[in-house]
Amino acid sequence: MTARDGKPTLAVVGATGAVGAVMLQILSQHADIWGEIRLIASPRSAGRKLAVRGEEVEVVALDEEALSGVDVAMFDVPDEIARQWAPVAAAKGAVVVDNSGAFRMDPDVPLVVPEVNPHAARVRPRGIIATPNCTTLSMIVTLGALHAEFGLRELFVSSYQAVSGAGRAGIDALRQQLSLVAGTELGTSPGDLRRAVGDDTGPFPEPVALNVVPWAGSLREDGWSSEEMKVRDESRKILGLPELPVAVTCVRVPVVTAHSLTVHARFEGEVTVDRAREIIATAPGVVLFDNPAAGEFPTPADVVGTDPTWVGRVRRALDDPTALELFVCGDNLRKGAALNTTQVAESVARDFGAS
Amino acid sequence: MTARDGKPTLAVVGATGAVGAVMLQILSQHADIWGEIRLIASPRSAGRKLAVRGEEVEVVALDEEALSGVDVAMFDVPDEIARQWAPVAAAKGAVVVDNSGAFRMDPDVPLVVPEVNPHAARVRPRGIIATPNCTTLSMIVTLGALHAEFGLRELFVSSYQAVSGAGRAGIDALRQQLSLVAGTELGTSPGDLRRAVGDDTGPFPEPVALNVVPWAGSLREDGWSSEEMKVRDESRKILGLPELPVAVTCVRVPVVTAHSLTVHARFEGEVTVDRAREIIATAPGVVLFDNPAAGEFPTPADVVGTDPTWVGRVRRALDDPTALELFVCGDNLRKGAALNTTQVAESVARDFGAS
Repeated sequence: MTARDGKPTLAVVGATGAVGAVMLQILSQHADIWGEIRLIASPRSAGRKLAVRGEEVEVVALDEEALSGVDVAMFDVPDEIARQWAPVAAAKGAVVVDNSGAFRMDPDVPLVVPEVNPHAARVRPRGIIATPNCTTLSMIVTLGALHAEFGLRELFVSSYQAVSGAGRAGIDALRQQLSLVAGTELGTSPGDLRRAVGDDTGPFPEPVALNVVPWAGSLREDGWSSEEMKVRDESRKILGLPELPVAVTCVRVPVVTAHSLTVHARFEGEVTVDRAREIIATAPGVVLFDNPAAGEFPTPADVVGTDPTWVGRVRRALDDPTALELFVCGDNLRKGAALNTTQVAESVARDFGAS
Repeated sequence: MTARDGKPTLAVVGATGAVGAVMLQILSQHADIWGEIRLIASPRSAGRKLAVRGEEVEVVALDEEALSGVDVAMFDVPDEIARQWAPVAAAKGAVVVDNSGAFRMDPDVPLVVPEVNPHAARVRPRGIIATPNCTTLSMIVTLGALHAEFGLRELFVSSYQAVSGAGRAGIDALRQQLSLVAGTELGTSPGDLRRAVGDDTGPFPEPVALNVVPWAGSLREDGWSSEEMKVRDESRKILGLPELPVAVTCVRVPVVTAHSLTVHARFEGEVTVDRAREIIATAPGVVLFDNPAAGEFPTPADVVGTDPTWVGRVRRALDDPTALELFVCGDNLRKGAALNTTQVAESVARDFGAS
């Protein structure tokens, strides 16, 4: 390793994006284990200055030189950029922790959630570790803990996904649309929202203000969306259950940040709510927030800006003693993206220290 | 019957509410089969004038006299008002079509959706016919058609419920909250929405603007909400499947009108998407709107103000050839309440004509 002062060099590739901003925030809050932190983005953003660890750092353009002398590189960039540049960084000796979809299902790339499968990070033939999609991450820590005890057998998920899952453009689109609908009677007659919002619906196929849109990502076979397939495929890989039956419907909602999901999970044998609640309450990275009598259940407004997954509405299916119903909620930019990537990068750095 | 000019007298009890307003709209659009249409509401609203069939009609207060000489009475009032006054109307000879929760599970009260179980309306020992909760109605016409062909065996539902399900107070709360959050950066830091909205969250336990709230109704046993139990119990009764396994999670979303639901439905044997789409496309009261390649899937913005249930995202479960995934969307004030109640009332009136 090329560490200065005995500390490894970290590159943040995609530092100027919505997730990049949260990465810098988290790096500034966590124990400082890094030597240099190099901020890298598209040539368009080069020269901008961003704050990390209380210092202004100038952003450099993504090129071969920028990736030289890096020990760990966290990537949050579009898939095609990751596909091109992550192998370059790895060839130059960096361990890449990639948050794009480019490598997640590559059998030579581990897909890592530190609370669920930390050891997978150590076997990385391509020098690349992938981190899951934000929707998968919103539930997988909770499911990992329940699976370890009960043995997961079937999974049905419906999502309530925040617009920031589509980056800054998603946030801008919702805010722009909200400014058009607030203070109006819109949302009560056919087509009124669509006319008010016009053709420019940002990264979403329909208006998202005062609406919900049952689509995320691109079209896959048999009518499934790419986001739905990611949740299925990634959950199977992380949990080590390649045959797990999974059905997912992904829906965008007018929330800025924090994804929510309803989960119906069937296990090997009978489960009890009491034991499920104990597991959730004691699992690392998970908070049990479940007392409807006191008005306690997680909502995005409670959860935004926090690290853990919040879990509420824990019920046993009335007609199946082997199944649980849950409502989970997590900040899609933190644990759903920047935090998980940072946790994995930090675990790699700790291994450097240990070796 | 006490019909004038050979036409029956209709009472609309709860005429000044959000659902009442839609009832008057629908009565003005449908073929005019009624003699007198009497508008009834709380004493507080008596004397107001509302338009129906192009005429202004004065609202009278709910009392014994108001219910005299009525052939059919449509009730949309709180449960306790229905519990008190529906039997009074029935005792005076009216057939009551009640949209409250007061009588739905009464074994002597049929629970009727004309497209699914029309004949049940004719057996009404108490003179009362109940109509289902708006969330049940958003999916049950579609499920009835699929059940008739495939035989339903298991049902998992997650809802995306509009604020108008909580009446005018729900709409007012969302609009008020939207005026506070539009044009701000709210929704991105912990607790900011809650501070901005304050303690008055209207009929909802949490802020609903820029948020989703996994709670609707009151607390029932084992952590279930009353709304979730309604969807389970009413679906079983309407479909005539008293043992059907059903699991539901109800979530409120910042949409003014039109409930959406994700549905995972398992059937007796293997299903095909082609046949499912044929059934949906030809079922009365249902529209198939399902071509993701062309950006076609139902959203509340498409569906508000229309009569049918719109169905999209029709997929067969990848890991279970007997299960279908659907996204359904319906106007909770129309088919979800006013329209279904009016359809039932009209079918009763037609029976008068036939007898």
